[in-house]
Amino acid sequence: MRAKENFDITGISIGSEPLFIKAFGHVKKAAAWANRDLGVLDAKKADAIAYACDRLIAGEFTDQFVSDLIQGGAGTSTNMNANEVIANLGLEYLGYQKGEYKYLHPNNDVNLSQSTNDAYPSAFRIALYLKSASFITALEELQKAFHTKGKEFEGVLKMGRTQLQDAVPMTLGEEFNAFATALGKDVLNVQSAVQMMTEVNMGATAIGTGVNAPEGYAELCVKYLASISGVPVTLAADLIEATYDTSALVQLSGTLKQSAIKLSKICNDLRLLSSGPRCGLSEINLPAMQPGSSIMPGKVNPVIPELMNQTCFYVMGADVTVTMAAEAGQLQLNVMEPVMGMALFTSLQYLTKACDTLREKCVVGITANAEHSKNMVMQSIGIVTQLNPILGYEECSSIAKEALATGKSIYEIVVIERKLIDQMKWDEIYSVENLIHPKFIAQ
Amino acid sequence: MRAKENFDITGISIGSEPLFIKAFGHVKKAAAWANRDLGVLDAKKADAIAYACDRLIAGEFTDQFVSDLIQGGAGTSTNMNANEVIANLGLEYLGYQKGEYKYLHPNNDVNLSQSTNDAYPSAFRIALYLKSASFITALEELQKAFHTKGKEFEGVLKMGRTQLQDAVPMTLGEEFNAFATALGKDVLNVQSAVQMMTEVNMGATAIGTGVNAPEGYAELCVKYLASISGVPVTLAADLIEATYDTSALVQLSGTLKQSAIKLSKICNDLRLLSSGPRCGLSEINLPAMQPGSSIMPGKVNPVIPELMNQTCFYVMGADVTVTMAAEAGQLQLNVMEPVMGMALFTSLQYLTKACDTLREKCVVGITANAEHSKNMVMQSIGIVTQLNPILGYEECSSIAKEALATGKSIYEIVVIERKLIDQMKWDEIYSVENLIHPKFIAQ
Amino acid sequence: MRAKENFDITGISIGSEPLFIKAFGHVKKAAAWANRDLGVLDAKKADAIAYACDRLIAGEFTDQFVSDLIQGGAGTSTNMNANEVIANLGLEYLGYQKGEYKYLHPNNDVNLSQSTNDAYPSAFRIALYLKSASFITALEELQKAFHTKGKEFEGVLKMGRTQLQDAVPMTLGEEFNAFATALGKDVLNVQSAVQMMTEVNMGATAIGTGVNAPEGYAELCVKYLASISGVPVTLAADLIEATYDTSALVQLSGTLKQSAIKLSKICNDLRLLSSGPRCGLSEINLPAMQPGSSIMPGKVNPVIPELMNQTCFYVMGADVTVTMAAEAGQLQLNVMEPVMGMALFTSLQYLTKACDTLREKCVVGITANAEHSKNMVMQSIGIVTQLNPILGYEECSSIAKEALATGKSIYEIVVIERKLIDQMKWDEIYSVENLIHPKFIAQ
Amino acid sequence: MRAKENFDITGISIGSEPLFIKAFGHVKKAAAWANRDLGVLDAKKADAIAYACDRLIAGEFTDQFVSDLIQGGAGTSTNMNANEVIANLGLEYLGYQKGEYKYLHPNNDVNLSQSTNDAYPSAFRIALYLKSASFITALEELQKAFHTKGKEFEGVLKMGRTQLQDAVPMTLGEEFNAFATALGKDVLNVQSAVQMMTEVNMGATAIGTGVNAPEGYAELCVKYLASISGVPVTLAADLIEATYDTSALVQLSGTLKQSAIKLSKICNDLRLLSSGPRCGLSEINLPAMQPGSSIMPGKVNPVIPELMNQTCFYVMGADVTVTMAAEAGQLQLNVMEPVMGMALFTSLQYLTKACDTLREKCVVGITANAEHSKNMVMQSIGIVTQLNPILGYEECSSIAKEALATGKSIYEIVVIERKLIDQMKWDEIYSVENLIHPKFIAQ
Repeated sequence: MRAKENFDITGISIGSEPLFIKAFGHVKKAAAWANRDLGVLDAKKADAIAYACDRLIAGEFTDQFVSDLIQGGAGTSTNMNANEVIANLGLEYLGYQKGEYKYLHPNNDVNLSQSTNDAYPSAFRIALYLKSASFITALEELQKAFHTKGKEFEGVLKMGRTQLQDAVPMTLGEEFNAFATALGKDVLNVQSAVQMMTEVNMGATAIGTGVNAPEGYAELCVKYLASISGVPVTLAADLIEATYDTSALVQLSGTLKQSAIKLSKICNDLRLLSSGPRCGLSEINLPAMQPGSSIMPGKVNPVIPELMNQTCFYVMGADVTVTMAAEAGQLQLNVMEPVMGMALFTSLQYLTKACDTLREKCVVGITANAEHSKNMVMQSIGIVTQLNPILGYEECSSIAKEALATGKSIYEIVVIERKLIDQMKWDEIYSVENLIHPKFIAQ
Repeated sequence: MRAKENFDITGISIGSEPLFIKAFGHVKKAAAWANRDLGVLDAKKADAIAYACDRLIAGEFTDQFVSDLIQGGAGTSTNMNANEVIANLGLEYLGYQKGEYKYLHPNNDVNLSQSTNDAYPSAFRIALYLKSASFITALEELQKAFHTKGKEFEGVLKMGRTQLQDAVPMTLGEEFNAFATALGKDVLNVQSAVQMMTEVNMGATAIGTGVNAPEGYAELCVKYLASISGVPVTLAADLIEATYDTSALVQLSGTLKQSAIKLSKICNDLRLLSSGPRCGLSEINLPAMQPGSSIMPGKVNPVIPELMNQTCFYVMGADVTVTMAAEAGQLQLNVMEPVMGMALFTSLQYLTKACDTLREKCVVGITANAEHSKNMVMQSIGIVTQLNPILGYEECSSIAKEALATGKSIYEIVVIERKLIDQMKWDEIYSVENLIHPKFIAQ
Repeated sequence: MRAKENFDITGISIGSEPLFIKAFGHVKKAAAWANRDLGVLDAKKADAIAYACDRLIAGEFTDQFVSDLIQGGAGTSTNMNANEVIANLGLEYLGYQKGEYKYLHPNNDVNLSQSTNDAYPSAFRIALYLKSASFITALEELQKAFHTKGKEFEGVLKMGRTQLQDAVPMTLGEEFNAFATALGKDVLNVQSAVQMMTEVNMGATAIGTGVNAPEGYAELCVKYLASISGVPVTLAADLIEATYDTSALVQLSGTLKQSAIKLSKICNDLRLLSSGPRCGLSEINLPAMQPGSSIMPGKVNPVIPELMNQTCFYVMGADVTVTMAAEAGQLQLNVMEPVMGMALFTSLQYLTKACDTLREKCVVGITANAEHSKNMVMQSIGIVTQLNPILGYEECSSIAKEALATGKSIYEIVVIERKLIDQMKWDEIYSVENLIHPKFIAQ
Repeated sequence: MRAKENFDITGISIGSEPLFIKAFGHVKKAAAWANRDLGVLDAKKADAIAYACDRLIAGEFTDQFVSDLIQGGAGTSTNMNANEVIANLGLEYLGYQKGEYKYLHPNNDVNLSQSTNDAYPSAFRIALYLKSASFITALEELQKAFHTKGKEFEGVLKMGRTQLQDAVPMTLGEEFNAFATALGKDVLNVQSAVQMMTEVNMGATAIGTGVNAPEGYAELCVKYLASISGVPVTLAADLIEATYDTSALVQLSGTLKQSAIKLSKICNDLRLLSSGPRCGLSEINLPAMQPGSSIMPGKVNPVIPELMNQTCFYVMGADVTVTMAAEAGQLQLNVMEPVMGMALFTSLQYLTKACDTLREKCVVGITANAEHSKNMVMQSIGIVTQLNPILGYEECSSIAKEALATGKSIYEIVVIERKLIDQMKWDEIYSVENLIHPKFIAQ
């Protein structure tokens, strides 16, 4: 309550991240069991705490977590909030009134052998681990959607472009498959970054020296934590370092930023390829989502890719927030973890939703303008590149220049005017098959 | 509705920015009056629109603005949302049923002579202008609070530090006054950036050519807009440029970032100066806000400055979001304005709240450890600097080195051992008065 | 020397910024004259210092400034470097040997009444003021070049685009004029940011208390500094604040970033508009600079705009460097000014060169594909917007949809099929004149 | 030459990155051998190319690579520069004059089966792989230096601090070991990021379709490339994706940024711990490097950590540059790789040098103020935490509050006044041994 009053910045409460509350349930239950086994916590109290934690794990009582996402105190408010909610639920279980803390105390019992400085970062990392799963799924689904389209478009010949200039032919299928490939790599990257979340510092207590935690507690607690949460957590080798270091968070943020870069690039391409309908590239059509304009009738805009671009810009900004916060850690603690939490939770959430939206409302409905695309290829100058091995770079340059200056086609110049190759050779080189899967054809 | 369905990223609706809805009221009313005066809109319809707008301006119906803060389509959803809400309110006023658009049409009447591309950015800039006022007030109040403390602490002698190393004496009052000075400059900076919001592009319609707007409409509409909103808006000289350019938003974001840098620096200093209580600088005490730790009894932590630091890191990240979005504008429109809106509205809101919190819950309650601070000064080596004009840099260096090596005080070495100046001279130079307001004293 | 050895990061010496050395000449000369007038420096010594400074001001001896652009110590190495170079030149002037510091001492004489903490930031700000002049000129020249092109292209009808989709017609001249308008605003922004450089803190000495500076020195020194440097410097009102605050540098960096955003956006547009030659928008041609490809003959790439884009990305990154460095200032000094110097000097230099390159090697040689552009307009669906005031938004939507589905032209549907307006009306609305300067035409 | 003229931004030539030139040697030699084996290149020509490449690999002729680090054209200038240098060296080998390209042609022979779009990115990635080795070594050496200090300081008791407030005791050895641990993790991170450099796209030619490359070339070329360069390169599975995707570069940049965050945090801590000498924490002494001040005699400043902080701010800014450049890739190519090269090469170089400097000129010479540190611990209030398991959180809070209010020591209140534990218990709990390796001690 006091925390809520002190910290009122975003208006978004910690309870809006249900996985974070769940993870506190995991942490507090594991600690209770370890304390019980080591004889420092009464078995009945441990049961009461475990009962309360199970209810948090089940998703209940998130509304009792009222402190703001951005908070001072390195998460002390959140940890104490959790201790109190659990103590009161436990008291109820034991048949006492709320607040009768002499029977089950938030600090002396629920927080036993712990500090905010180990409980909070451990719960935070578990929450990120769990939350990342949805994003990974969203990425995989999107990858599949692009792959399906890649298959669908494998016969659609189109102009490849470098530096926005006509280059050499390719297929639309190859282009969409490449999107799938790029996202597939990202699935691996995110999975690998998420593994870093599994190193936790339970047992570190205040600064990593383990003051006030019984011998053997750290190992036992982490063992319980792994089995309770289902997250393969392990104990950090250097608890002093693990208590202040936030590099796992930085790594995750960097990986999300990288996904954002890729997704933004893909959406930039979708918008370019669908530009038109008459004065653009117009190789593909995005499904129409809504009237595009309040003044221009019939205008269809690439609103879904634009949505993704903006989400990505948010994520790229959030990465700078994480950078600043990580760099600001001092001595034995990084007190800025809450804003890193805000940045990472929102980035994961927004990206996941944006990936699902992009897939459902855009990618699956994309259609190709195959005829138009092929016509552009055959009109292009870029196809002269195919003649390099036969005619050499300089002759080809001269052909290209003439085409550009006169508006003539490559065919006209090469076969008819300059008679450099005959019709049969031309047909061999410029068959759709060879344009799609070019063979090396020399003289 | 469709927009809400398409765009569900942040879960925060546009209606959560009441000033943005209000600004749409201003814009649509001004357009209606201009259209009426120019004879393209029936006076009765204009009245109905004005009535509806007045209700939005009064703060009603924000719950009917459901589209997400991040949206594709350059704000078309928001503009159409406004058109429909206004049309339906107007229909009610005219005695018709909701949806009987033949009597008052969202596009043909409410949006008449407009496009999303002028209505949205104009309303956006007006909203930012209005919202900035609270931030400016918060900055001014904070500045005053520091100034008051500066006065209170003007007799508190303390060690000045450069590069975290003891330098020369100063007063705590000077230190707090400097915070006030820094914020005072920022008030001016923000006021100046906010002025850039007053250039609007009403009458540009789709891309700045003014297609479908009657002659004279732009000027008339902007005149009305200024008087209705109370914001001194003027018409952009180049409507093509004004329709895509977002440099005013970039400038505002940069200015907020600069405030964030200053506020973060100030809070870093407050945390340093209050470090301790026994093993830090301990020159000042911040008011205790909450139990500082779940494990360390009696610990008081600088939670409010930490709150501000994190808020500032958010704002610095948001500036990168704005940068990316501004750079992504293409050709005749910057379609990324919605995410710039999200970044700017939240930055303004969070900073305003954080400034108020810092003032109320921290600055006004700061107390000085005057005795401790003075003792540190008199024990310091840095005060040898005062002897430079008399003894020269090299002699003073030798004194400083001896003090550092032996733990002796400057007084001991200079007056007793080396007898370089006599007691009277020492007393003149090292009176509190002269340490606070140093006079140039040569041999 | 010692500094050179200690600080070897970038390999770029401080002497590579001749304006910075020049500014040290201004500062040291002003200090010497003020010290002389106040009777703390012998007139002969003052003359010797002034002589030495004049040689630095003339651009000599930059090779003697060897310390690295990135250095620890808040510029102490640079200031001491300057003190020594000046002392030795002064000794020569007085007829002594280099190093005979008893006759003219780097610290006791050249640095008299100064500290690195006032001399370095003052010289730094003067150097930025002077260096910005070239950038402002480059911006102005580029603005003029775009304006000239705007005039040249004022009759070239083309399709305006929003969200990369065909919108309504405009002229290429309007597009280029808008680039000029945008840059013109930036000239004002940069000029205004540069004014912030004129507040200096001479007389602050170590931390702003003015310890060891004689009464009246600060005012007198700044007066001399203004007349010697020609830069309208004034004395900061709060020297404590002025000694640590770097907001003027942040503001300048933010303004350069804003220019970078605009220039990058313009270059993105130039690359889009020149995309092709056969499979892109192809509205303009950029001058060919070099063979575009080692494999694709005849390929002409937009290498100059690409150069600008990359330069702008550098500047946007440098702004984050400045942000981090400014936020890291602690207590009475910001020790991170050297890296801010590196970021600002390089950003100014690179942007200036890139603007000149863009103008000379690209903008002045751009040609328009007027016929192609006009044809695209007339084939477009977007021109149906012009019929809104006559036919209403819904009828126009239906026309647009039919055009899109069938490939028919707007003319065909409106005049021939649906007979909604007659040929005369059509000709009135769709004359090039009316497309370029649209009049409001209702039924 | 033309490129040099066109691109003159940074004034830093591509030849200043000798490993990049070397990597071009690897790439061109591998291509020549693959072409020879596949019968499309004469064996004699292949020998001549290999000879020329060997000279580049040996580090010769870097001065002939004159194009600017920032360049348009996606590296075409650099690739053509390499082709020409190699062709001319090869001609010399074959007994011809420079420029007699009919005997060995830069494009038709040296660039055979290649494009800038595969040769440049492949060489770039190999250069980064090679250059990263020095950085990894520098990190490892620095890690070892911290580890050695950790061992040296393992008996030095000191106050641990969270949120800059006194927390619980620890040793200085633990603090320095944690620095070593953090850097050790980074060594692994950088090694893992560097592995991403090994995926190359040789054989992709223009856009990944492999146009103009003979069957089997890609695989053979990459096999040769691995053996020639010693870098375990493999062929990308999706050449279309690999030709535009820059995520490996983004990942490397993000990893360097993460190292920068850690190094900056460590240096912030070193500066805090060495603050003083009399009015700061003063737990450690950094070796004195240079006179700290031009005005304050005897001042010793933490110039080397400051140097590292600034280097890190540069790297964090460079990461934003890389982000922008990566996001700007369009369609089949990312034309912005050169500025990514500039950012990555300089970041690697600066960080490597800064790590070496930090180690040599700072870390190895750090000494501890052990007596002072221990005294601070024993005076502290934080040590009351050790009594939590015996007295409970609330009693301990009350003790802490009394200590804070009265200035009394914990011992005085607990043992003498309140008689809560006896002297023997006190001695057990507060032995240096138990403070350093706290055991869980309950009633």
